[in-house]
Amino acid sequence: MRTIDWKDESNSVVLVDQTLLPKEYRIIECKTLSSLCEAIKSLRIRGAPALGAAGGFGIALAAFLSEAKDIETITRDLEVAGKTLKSTRPTAVNLSWGVDRVLRAISDAFDVQGVRDIALQEAKDIAEEDVAINKLIGKYGAKLLKDGDTVLTHCNAGRLACVDWGTALGVARSAIAEGKEIKVIACETRPLNQGSRITTWELMQDNIPVTLISDSMAGWAMRQGLVDSVLVGADRITQDVVFNKIGTYSLSILAKEHEIPFYVAAPISTFDFDGWEGSVKIEMRNPDELRFFGSEQLAPKDVEVYNPAFDATPMENITAVITEKGIFYPPFLLDEVLV
Amino acid sequence: MRTIDWKDESNSVVLVDQTLLPKEYRIIECKTLSSLCEAIKSLRIRGAPALGAAGGFGIALAAFLSEAKDIETITRDLEVAGKTLKSTRPTAVNLSWGVDRVLRAISDAFDVQGVRDIALQEAKDIAEEDVAINKLIGKYGAKLLKDGDTVLTHCNAGRLACVDWGTALGVARSAIAEGKEIKVIACETRPLNQGSRITTWELMQDNIPVTLISDSMAGWAMRQGLVDSVLVGADRITQDVVFNKIGTYSLSILAKEHEIPFYVAAPISTFDFDGWEGSVKIEMRNPDELRFFGSEQLAPKDVEVYNPAFDATPMENITAVITEKGIFYPPFLLDEVLV
Repeated sequence: MRTIDWKDESNSVVLVDQTLLPKEYRIIECKTLSSLCEAIKSLRIRGAPALGAAGGFGIALAAFLSEAKDIETITRDLEVAGKTLKSTRPTAVNLSWGVDRVLRAISDAFDVQGVRDIALQEAKDIAEEDVAINKLIGKYGAKLLKDGDTVLTHCNAGRLACVDWGTALGVARSAIAEGKEIKVIACETRPLNQGSRITTWELMQDNIPVTLISDSMAGWAMRQGLVDSVLVGADRITQDVVFNKIGTYSLSILAKEHEIPFYVAAPISTFDFDGWEGSVKIEMRNPDELRFFGSEQLAPKDVEVYNPAFDATPMENITAVITEKGIFYPPFLLDEVLV
Repeated sequence: MRTIDWKDESNSVVLVDQTLLPKEYRIIECKTLSSLCEAIKSLRIRGAPALGAAGGFGIALAAFLSEAKDIETITRDLEVAGKTLKSTRPTAVNLSWGVDRVLRAISDAFDVQGVRDIALQEAKDIAEEDVAINKLIGKYGAKLLKDGDTVLTHCNAGRLACVDWGTALGVARSAIAEGKEIKVIACETRPLNQGSRITTWELMQDNIPVTLISDSMAGWAMRQGLVDSVLVGADRITQDVVFNKIGTYSLSILAKEHEIPFYVAAPISTFDFDGWEGSVKIEMRNPDELRFFGSEQLAPKDVEVYNPAFDATPMENITAVITEKGIFYPPFLLDEVLV
């Protein structure tokens, strides 16, 4: 099933609980707004595109749960629900975007049932559009992969970060759908191991050959000739750099040294047309992520830790940016994608 | 205390149990050969120089435990003990070297007590020489570090890999002993986390400022201007490359890209005068090291894994090799160090 979806029979939101992977594949059904909020807060669902859909479906869920008898009351209920949803991950831009898009759509409704219908349709549209965008990214990106290629990827830019298909992993899926043989090397992606926990799992589910390495092995794998291209997603793309999971910048230098193409696959919603490397503050995460893994202690409890969540890769290290509007080769102006 | 030492009061070998670090600092006392063998086998003591001393002290221990009444019998006892010791880590060159050096020395003895005295003296000499060599490496290497420098290191090339002082970390210690302010950035060193578990611990014990990062953060830390030099140890140095813990090669490329000096600190016993990159087979370790950390599952149990124990860094990526005979700048012939 999709990472997140609507269940018509019970008017509820269903999603894959990613905190249990790879040990257990469990679908959870959110019948109340608070259970959906809990799922977002505790990262049972994560990834920018997936959170956009979660925001949309959250408003639809609130519309079906509202006992309002008139349009003013249900509109007020949904605005409250929107605030509650947004507060679960205040910095997740896509979550707010999904909430607001559905809230804007319901202004076309004439009655309570109309609000429900429109909210649900708009939420479903967000999810469908996300899949369609990923399929387009995949279609364009697949041209860059040759039959027999091995692509190295970092973190999880796969279907579990989206509604379905994925961005970076979507490109690999599209190439495979075209009949090419593609293998993937997944960097484990310390400290939260999205590569080992999620990327490997979702590729194995689809019978796509995947080999797990530690982040420190990427350079050596390239020197051994095991890597044909690097393919990653993006958190935010400015005119000068691509912000993505910490470790992406190092991979771009290692790829350059070994003359391996370095591709970024991301929807245009990731573009920050007015931003620059210097305008973005990189979030520092909890030091305990490097001191512990679950119940296991990895380091002295009071050791000083440097733990930036992401890094910035200069455009000159990037061979191409793959979007739903086509492939763009740096240097290019972000505005060109809109033409 | 030292990583490994002899206790005169009880004629036993004492060592720091490194499997318990950083949670617990415990000294274990080996009064029997089998307890010392168990300590070596289960990595309570590790690191090439430290294992050389363990081999020497092991033969001394066997000499004191032997109930032989004549020199032929004790010699036979010690040869058996030597085989037992070597079998605990058959690929550890230094362990065999320590055993054989003491076995050779006892041929000068005239009686059983003489065997015991000579064996113990030779074992103590091995340990003392190891410390002296590290201090010389430190003395030469310290010249390369400036007051206020931050050095980035990988794995553990510290006193816990040696009898005392350390190679790469010994250089930092020597610079600090000369009055320079030196800070260390320790890469956690996946998959076995010697950086987070051991390097941070031993530096914190000595009040040397240390910051822990994941291996994937090294490039970004360099780009942020946080690193003045990279300083690592070596497992084996051939004419063309330096074999060291997996991840070292990537660091050498990242350092080159950021124009940061890349130093290798190692005793001449690490030199393989006849070896080349192609003549050394890199050991592939257990895939479970990337699938689990202790009791925590990191990845699908049956995921394919690439897990080389070490990599090879070409001499052209190395700024200098620091030995007890001085500093050598590539390109140089290994034989030059013997002149």
